[in-house]
Amino acid sequence: MSHNLLKGKKGIIFGALDENSIAWKTALRCFEEGASLLLTNAPVAMRYGEINKLAELVNAPVIPCDVSSDEDVLNLMTKSMEHFGGGVDFILHSVGMSLNMRKGNHYTDIDYMLNSKTLDISSMSLHRVLAAAMKLDAINEWGSVVALSYIAAQRVFPDYSEMADAKALLESVCRSFGYHYGVKKHVRINSISQSPTKTTAGSGVKGFDGFISYAEKMSPLGNASADDCAKYCVSLFSDFTRMVTMQNLFHDGGFSFTGVTMSVIDQMSE
Amino acid sequence: MSHNLLKGKKGIIFGALDENSIAWKTALRCFEEGASLLLTNAPVAMRYGEINKLAELVNAPVIPCDVSSDEDVLNLMTKSMEHFGGGVDFILHSVGMSLNMRKGNHYTDIDYMLNSKTLDISSMSLHRVLAAAMKLDAINEWGSVVALSYIAAQRVFPDYSEMADAKALLESVCRSFGYHYGVKKHVRINSISQSPTKTTAGSGVKGFDGFISYAEKMSPLGNASADDCAKYCVSLFSDFTRMVTMQNLFHDGGFSFTGVTMSVIDQMSE
Amino acid sequence: MSHNLLKGKKGIIFGALDENSIAWKTALRCFEEGASLLLTNAPVAMRYGEINKLAELVNAPVIPCDVSSDEDVLNLMTKSMEHFGGGVDFILHSVGMSLNMRKGNHYTDIDYMLNSKTLDISSMSLHRVLAAAMKLDAINEWGSVVALSYIAAQRVFPDYSEMADAKALLESVCRSFGYHYGVKKHVRINSISQSPTKTTAGSGVKGFDGFISYAEKMSPLGNASADDCAKYCVSLFSDFTRMVTMQNLFHDGGFSFTGVTMSVIDQMSE
Amino acid sequence: MSHNLLKGKKGIIFGALDENSIAWKTALRCFEEGASLLLTNAPVAMRYGEINKLAELVNAPVIPCDVSSDEDVLNLMTKSMEHFGGGVDFILHSVGMSLNMRKGNHYTDIDYMLNSKTLDISSMSLHRVLAAAMKLDAINEWGSVVALSYIAAQRVFPDYSEMADAKALLESVCRSFGYHYGVKKHVRINSISQSPTKTTAGSGVKGFDGFISYAEKMSPLGNASADDCAKYCVSLFSDFTRMVTMQNLFHDGGFSFTGVTMSVIDQMSE
Repeated sequence: MSHNLLKGKKGIIFGALDENSIAWKTALRCFEEGASLLLTNAPVAMRYGEINKLAELVNAPVIPCDVSSDEDVLNLMTKSMEHFGGGVDFILHSVGMSLNMRKGNHYTDIDYMLNSKTLDISSMSLHRVLAAAMKLDAINEWGSVVALSYIAAQRVFPDYSEMADAKALLESVCRSFGYHYGVKKHVRINSISQSPTKTTAGSGVKGFDGFISYAEKMSPLGNASADDCAKYCVSLFSDFTRMVTMQNLFHDGGFSFTGVTMSVIDQMSE
Repeated sequence: MSHNLLKGKKGIIFGALDENSIAWKTALRCFEEGASLLLTNAPVAMRYGEINKLAELVNAPVIPCDVSSDEDVLNLMTKSMEHFGGGVDFILHSVGMSLNMRKGNHYTDIDYMLNSKTLDISSMSLHRVLAAAMKLDAINEWGSVVALSYIAAQRVFPDYSEMADAKALLESVCRSFGYHYGVKKHVRINSISQSPTKTTAGSGVKGFDGFISYAEKMSPLGNASADDCAKYCVSLFSDFTRMVTMQNLFHDGGFSFTGVTMSVIDQMSE
Repeated sequence: MSHNLLKGKKGIIFGALDENSIAWKTALRCFEEGASLLLTNAPVAMRYGEINKLAELVNAPVIPCDVSSDEDVLNLMTKSMEHFGGGVDFILHSVGMSLNMRKGNHYTDIDYMLNSKTLDISSMSLHRVLAAAMKLDAINEWGSVVALSYIAAQRVFPDYSEMADAKALLESVCRSFGYHYGVKKHVRINSISQSPTKTTAGSGVKGFDGFISYAEKMSPLGNASADDCAKYCVSLFSDFTRMVTMQNLFHDGGFSFTGVTMSVIDQMSE
Repeated sequence: MSHNLLKGKKGIIFGALDENSIAWKTALRCFEEGASLLLTNAPVAMRYGEINKLAELVNAPVIPCDVSSDEDVLNLMTKSMEHFGGGVDFILHSVGMSLNMRKGNHYTDIDYMLNSKTLDISSMSLHRVLAAAMKLDAINEWGSVVALSYIAAQRVFPDYSEMADAKALLESVCRSFGYHYGVKKHVRINSISQSPTKTTAGSGVKGFDGFISYAEKMSPLGNASADDCAKYCVSLFSDFTRMVTMQNLFHDGGFSFTGVTMSVIDQMSE
């Protein structure tokens, strides 16, 4: 059942690869809640993914965009202005890639050229999008931007490796740009720190299944699913949360403030 | 316009004194979004306030309750079960009083008997409500509890005095009970750390006006109003935020993550 | 080997029960580093403990003090002024007792009269000591106060129960009073958030051994011992840390910023 | 007077430009406390600075090192091993440069090539040093590494611009590498989040004087000086703090946990 929470609102969704993606589910949920959408992803991800299927479902155009290219990002925001005949009301940034993890490099022995690309794609891409939007005035007054993050930005998960640093940088960009865009145009910018989620991208992380099951046991409500996250995104895009900005919001069934659970203690003492 | 976000949901609102209260505005907004309500406040506050006017507006019964009395709280939850014919889906805890501030005692020279009452009324009252609810099974599966807090729980505001400690304790109760109620029944418990808000209660704090204006200048989006807070409460009572628990959520226009603003620097260098 | 880090400094040590106590070891270490000491503990704890043995070792008087009594605390600080012929340079507050845990009451079903005493003894006792000290001018300019805390103040450890809330309150008192005493007399006040430590007091916590072994596996450096903590206290009492105040300092081998370790994952997947 | 806190210890100091540098003062203090030192700085900084003067004062060799060059860093650590005939016991990383600030680019309109260099020099340089050290086993068991940071990593200071993001990344590297080096060799890694300090480097930041005076008024103990910071570094390099790791330690006279001071309120209402 739709609550028309986003009726009349326009938004851009980054990073919908396939139906397991948080971005995919968020697009569906935003559409259901009355939003008009524009989809984008990296040209290479579009080839492997099924974004065109999603585009049909939510009746949205797809604009390819390499987020590490100033030109591509500017082009995307320009096209968005043209398509919507003005600014958007929300943006979901669901983008991240660790090139050193992909190469199998251990955190203590990374290639710094690859690391620079990891940070550029996973973190500074948000800055690039926001800077282009500010230049073109492509986000409406009181618009809402959400970036997806992970608690590794605060605490170490050994296998999450260089993505942890990238997420810490991403969250800092949310705060820093959140200040400037807030003062200038009341645009609010937050990150959601989501439970580990079984997406096609996430599956690449070594030992991911073991970790999902640990997080499940360590969360009083269990892990938050991609569907739950889509709904939380909708609430943050809606007018019910207009004064929330520059925050990193844990959406994780309580994992972040749980020191230990009986369930973990029990399993460890078996 | 209603979005029917709380259609079919039942809730208890603590602490609506008069139309300036956050609790008052939250009751109105919850009602508008389709919720059935039950109102409560301290007997003494009911005499000075206008809760009966609100009760008519939202078509709700009023049950007096001294939150420092085990008996009163148990009675309230029992009456709630009877009235609704079962458990509730949400609770707003908007309760707080600093007896030492009332007496004009400086933070460094308080009366510890009064302090004990301050902590009991402002913080442990939430525990008492939750314990009674758990005993009677008076909150439904996936229910949502919100307590109102303030950033003085994290950082010192000299005139906020003993309420700062009370809020820190309150937030800890949210986490501690959030764990147990989460594991047991998926009930989620969060606090909202709200901008300083011009309520009748808040007005009692010495130098409050000066502080509101400072916070306004220190918040990229300005201070969040009581109305904004009411809407944020609705989002947290809704099904769009089900996996958020044990969090302290800043609702403050960005104040919490702002180190300084140009506006403050400018005024200070005049 | 002594470094004379506290040469010429005078201090009060609360809470040395027996040779397993952090306070006991801190007293020894402070003495070794050149400090003059005064010891205190609750009358009842003195009967069961061996504080007089410590008193001989560090050549210090013992003044009994029930920290929940305004009179006792004022008497203690007065005696301290007399003994030292002036103010002290440091204080260790190592005090805490959970009356509901002692009674075996589950966190969700506590007695609020006992809880009030728990908070008074474990948290507000620090306030009482500081208020008495301020009244009598019993802490010297740039003096250093340390209170012992635990990470349950931030994250839930189910069996740690009401002590978690007490520690959250204690840390808030450190900040609040830290502001006022800092502004007034440059006195700095911090808490140390220590690894779970096998003391006689700690042993009372249900499932404590299991938890110590979990924490050991979750800390990159392992758990910090009572001896390590004593040394850390010395560093905070010394002139090498004079601008650190109002902080909660984790002394835990990295536990606080570790999300998970390979060691925990391995044991869980066995 | 020396306490011989670092007697027998060997360390590397990065970033001593001139006598206003925190690194300069830390080198002097470490030397006084009995340490043997090796100094390093960027070739270009060495030309403008006076590092050779310091080298004489502390009887240390100087090895130039561009921290953005894998080769230079490996060479430095190799030379260090040769010079000391083994590993070091501590390292101070006091390195940072914002290329966009230097160009006068506003935070919302940066050059991403320059940004990539800023992050590499200011943040990933620490990773490069630690990775090289790990490869060569150039830090002794229980060694201590300190990096200098700033509270802009947590809260926005508008003029601090891209350095805020760089510091957030730097602190994440401390945690991430702190885990791995801790598990492997008990090496502990922390950052100090220092008050704004009038160094030659800091002076480059626009509006810096106004900000130092604001921070002074917002800190119960006033701003921590470079000298204070040097002493704090010594305490963290010493054996009195061996179980502290992966922490960001505020050394700021209480600024970090102060919401507002009477002094600021007073000046704003003039």
